[in-house]
Amino acid sequence: MFAFELPDVAALNDPDLAARVRHAIDHKTKPLGALGQLEALALQLALIQGRDLPVLDQPQLLVFAADHGLAARGVSAYPSDVTAQMVLNFLHGGAAVSVLARQHGLALTVVDAGVRQDFEPHPRLRRCKVAPGTADASQAQAMSLSQCAQAIAVGREVVASLPGNGVLLGEMGIGNSSAAALLVARLTDSPIAACTGRGTGLDDAALAHKTAVLAEVLALHADAVEPLDALAAFGGLEIAALVGAVLQAAAERRVIVVDGYIVSSAVLVASRLQPAVLQRCVFAHRSQEPGHRRLLAHWGVRPLIDLDLRLGEGSGAALAWPLLESACRILAEMASFESAGVSGPSP
Amino acid sequence: MFAFELPDVAALNDPDLAARVRHAIDHKTKPLGALGQLEALALQLALIQGRDLPVLDQPQLLVFAADHGLAARGVSAYPSDVTAQMVLNFLHGGAAVSVLARQHGLALTVVDAGVRQDFEPHPRLRRCKVAPGTADASQAQAMSLSQCAQAIAVGREVVASLPGNGVLLGEMGIGNSSAAALLVARLTDSPIAACTGRGTGLDDAALAHKTAVLAEVLALHADAVEPLDALAAFGGLEIAALVGAVLQAAAERRVIVVDGYIVSSAVLVASRLQPAVLQRCVFAHRSQEPGHRRLLAHWGVRPLIDLDLRLGEGSGAALAWPLLESACRILAEMASFESAGVSGPSP
Repeated sequence: MFAFELPDVAALNDPDLAARVRHAIDHKTKPLGALGQLEALALQLALIQGRDLPVLDQPQLLVFAADHGLAARGVSAYPSDVTAQMVLNFLHGGAAVSVLARQHGLALTVVDAGVRQDFEPHPRLRRCKVAPGTADASQAQAMSLSQCAQAIAVGREVVASLPGNGVLLGEMGIGNSSAAALLVARLTDSPIAACTGRGTGLDDAALAHKTAVLAEVLALHADAVEPLDALAAFGGLEIAALVGAVLQAAAERRVIVVDGYIVSSAVLVASRLQPAVLQRCVFAHRSQEPGHRRLLAHWGVRPLIDLDLRLGEGSGAALAWPLLESACRILAEMASFESAGVSGPSP
Repeated sequence: MFAFELPDVAALNDPDLAARVRHAIDHKTKPLGALGQLEALALQLALIQGRDLPVLDQPQLLVFAADHGLAARGVSAYPSDVTAQMVLNFLHGGAAVSVLARQHGLALTVVDAGVRQDFEPHPRLRRCKVAPGTADASQAQAMSLSQCAQAIAVGREVVASLPGNGVLLGEMGIGNSSAAALLVARLTDSPIAACTGRGTGLDDAALAHKTAVLAEVLALHADAVEPLDALAAFGGLEIAALVGAVLQAAAERRVIVVDGYIVSSAVLVASRLQPAVLQRCVFAHRSQEPGHRRLLAHWGVRPLIDLDLRLGEGSGAALAWPLLESACRILAEMASFESAGVSGPSP
């Protein structure tokens, strides 16, 4: 066993508020239901914040980064050095997520939860390295339970330290689509082949190799069936930190904007510890990774955008952000039939 | 025959520019193709503007409004008065499109191309009424060819008078999903039932009635097979004005953001007159109307968002707008592997 304090995440349940918000939406100057999924989003945001007119304040985009020992087995198209190089690219403003965060006024923070390389201090970097990467999960547990708990605590502390009521979660870690695939396969009892994709761009032969390696890892850790055991067995440190971030943000009733496959795998782990975290999650996009599509279907979730993205970093979350703003503004600013003097449907 | 000056819309064809932009995208710090549809959008914007780094300047959201004589046949859930009431709602800032235009800094202009009611002057209203609504297309041609030409000229003139290099096109007109269905059925040779939807919210019986009325109208105007003849036969004045707006914007190489079913039906007419207009069109969203899905499939187009919207007004175009901004920023602001010192794929 290991010491792990689980934050309390209460189920959101306020039927009066839900009824009021539905009534408000239905009396806006538009046909019933005509704003489609945006109406459901507005209701969700109201319920998360517990108020009729949700307001998004000081949104924080968090990119958790770490390396994976399993990358040595050739499961990624890119070398592990790219993790650190991309951290610097995030900080210097040249990555996709940097560009999109600037566009939408999202405060960007990069968290080193376990990158192999060390970094100089930087105002947007949190240096919280638990270890210089995980162990090779095809040889041993990726993390000790103690490291796993430390990484979860990192995610919780970073979220708790930041202002605002919304977090957009992203990640960087060469090899982490493998860890996500292992977690999803184990925790949803799915075939590993159905959870494994091309990641950063594997060809057919490399995809077959990745799938074979992951099957081997899954078999090695056949006893890691509980969520935290699976997380420790498969990694990574950034995913564990994301689990902590999801739990903390949910406990504080922040809106959680979930990026792609890797962040979703962290949500999966967190939701097995505290199921009500899912009520706080807005799923930003459907990635090209087949395992992500499978996981979203497992939850019955339809994400906001579907643009064949497969970049990670939080890029999909950032792209979807204006839709959350729109949902809030529609509630706050649209006229009602009565206030605008518009006729309803013909009798 | 009728006097109609067709603007010249040359095919965009610059293989050198396309190759340069593709090269730039492929060398950004991301796996090849990882930004999915956003990469194709960036390329399209570059080709429309004829430059390596497209820039969106002073975007104009245009809402064309008019009434439909066919509405007297009970093809809409709402009375025709709602067209004028919603025009006032647009001007007073309470409609969905007003809210979204404010959110994204889009200049909103409402064009009265043929609303039954008259309006007082307003700085955001263009009073260009060709007629107080169309005739009932189940009795006669909706418009004379002369009215049709006038309405097209209205759309052209409004676009030509506005600054900027992008237009977002929307509409308001009780009954206009019927006109769109008739145009799409005739011009794509599709069964009317496959083109007819619930519009603002018909129930099953009302949908069956609408479909029967439209089948009757289609039969009455069996000889209206050429695009402008079909447009005059089925209406409406706002759709004709949209045809003019599409042609003018395309001729000026403005980016055209196409909203939902009704605007798409205008693009269909315009594209039969000048096929190259389609190269300038960014399809914002896939509406719930079955005819819109059919038309997008007919073109082989995948729109940017798919949120079960069925509101019109230009709301879907406004919601998609930040994605166009993102595509431009990615080209302009993302680092390359070389400039950021990031390694490429492993050999």
